[in-house]
Amino acid sequence: MLYFIGLGLGDAKDITVKGLEVVKSAKKVFLEHYTSILSCGKTDLEEFYGRNDLILADRDLVESGADEILEDAKDDTVAFLVVGDPFGATTHADLMIRARELGIKTKTIHNASIMNAIGCCGLQLYSFGETVSIPFWTEDWQPDSFFDKIQVNLERGFHTLCLLDIKVAERSIENMMKNRKIFEPPRFMTVSQAADQLLKIIQKKGDNAKINEDSIAIGVARVGHDDQNMVAAPLKDLLNMDFGSPLHSLVIPGQLQILEQDAVNFLKLKK
Amino acid sequence: MLYFIGLGLGDAKDITVKGLEVVKSAKKVFLEHYTSILSCGKTDLEEFYGRNDLILADRDLVESGADEILEDAKDDTVAFLVVGDPFGATTHADLMIRARELGIKTKTIHNASIMNAIGCCGLQLYSFGETVSIPFWTEDWQPDSFFDKIQVNLERGFHTLCLLDIKVAERSIENMMKNRKIFEPPRFMTVSQAADQLLKIIQKKGDNAKINEDSIAIGVARVGHDDQNMVAAPLKDLLNMDFGSPLHSLVIPGQLQILEQDAVNFLKLKK
Repeated sequence: MLYFIGLGLGDAKDITVKGLEVVKSAKKVFLEHYTSILSCGKTDLEEFYGRNDLILADRDLVESGADEILEDAKDDTVAFLVVGDPFGATTHADLMIRARELGIKTKTIHNASIMNAIGCCGLQLYSFGETVSIPFWTEDWQPDSFFDKIQVNLERGFHTLCLLDIKVAERSIENMMKNRKIFEPPRFMTVSQAADQLLKIIQKKGDNAKINEDSIAIGVARVGHDDQNMVAAPLKDLLNMDFGSPLHSLVIPGQLQILEQDAVNFLKLKK
Repeated sequence: MLYFIGLGLGDAKDITVKGLEVVKSAKKVFLEHYTSILSCGKTDLEEFYGRNDLILADRDLVESGADEILEDAKDDTVAFLVVGDPFGATTHADLMIRARELGIKTKTIHNASIMNAIGCCGLQLYSFGETVSIPFWTEDWQPDSFFDKIQVNLERGFHTLCLLDIKVAERSIENMMKNRKIFEPPRFMTVSQAADQLLKIIQKKGDNAKINEDSIAIGVARVGHDDQNMVAAPLKDLLNMDFGSPLHSLVIPGQLQILEQDAVNFLKLKK
């Protein structure tokens, strides 16, 4: 049996009671750590689970070497832990299909992900349009297609959740060329960096942009953590705000209902 | 302190470890039971929590009589439990705003909701458009505006999650007139009933409908439960399928990527 277990958004205690029971009794436990990150480390998890044999699963292991995960699941219980909910990222659906093809039973223990927890900012989940991802720009790669999706949402009155880029297990070009498994420190896009890229696109689009530097957006950081932070402010102000440690996301509100407007007002900084 | 605690989708053990700790130590615990239902009863929850004083909160209590909830939260810990995640429905954002206005601190312990757990059917969460609600039709009220939203999603290649109506704490017209608090048994729309209403709309729309009776849809039941059930089949076949006990939902797939197509094929019944 292969269990897909969501860990939720915060710390070790955000696992469900049911999930914890499986983790404690499983023969092998893999921790996926490339599509998201946990605020607490592997060691904290191991301590909380009462076992010291968590296996870190990087993209390679899951996408090419899934055999290692699946082998034991044929006869024993294997747990595959994913930060948030297991089915945000395609790769895990792929792993599930491969398991089923081998006749391995699978079960999912769901948890919160940013895709539903973002409702805590007070905007209606039903009124969010397509979720977009804002990638880190480089000197010669500055895509802005995500902005078109925000515009389509705005046209229809929808809010947009912008997921901000995370770079985990990146290698420098030199290390890649030399096939060395030396990784750069992880990077997480901040609300400020996202606002900066958005403002540059808005400037470029001119009158075609449906938002401007004075448009209110909501910067959110560490949703589901004790020190969660949410501020509604004009984009030009978000540019200069420090939301602290990762993960950050950004919400571009569409048409606001009365209660939603109240909620947004509540997130504005008091003068 | 007022805690909003998500209970997840399955049984008592789907609460998070963190949520359970709060429930055990809170002075008062309210269980919201009108926007969704838990498969297990109040008694099961009480047994699992080790306390026998759960207070059922109906819409009246939350929308008009929130004082009762907020009063104790000024000086003590009060937990407000919601099936799924607390911020699917507007009413809870309203309660949070009222608490903050009174200077009461609030915290949210998130959990899975159908809005993110639906990813387990193998379709990418990012590729879902607007979520729609399909209401029970009556003899003289047969709204079909939700179908237009499905059509807009289809035009853009997006999948649609259709939430199916639930009727909890309904009163007959007679009982309402006489102001008697006698409630009808709860009702939950089945996949078959949803397919029936969709097929009637498709027939009415004729060539303007972007799906027909042969279009594949995915019926899902009891997501997150041990006996979760998902079947991909033509709408006309879903009409005659029994998915068992509630809750049911329906997914209308849009443009499918290769992996998504694999996942859908996996959900088709073997001949």
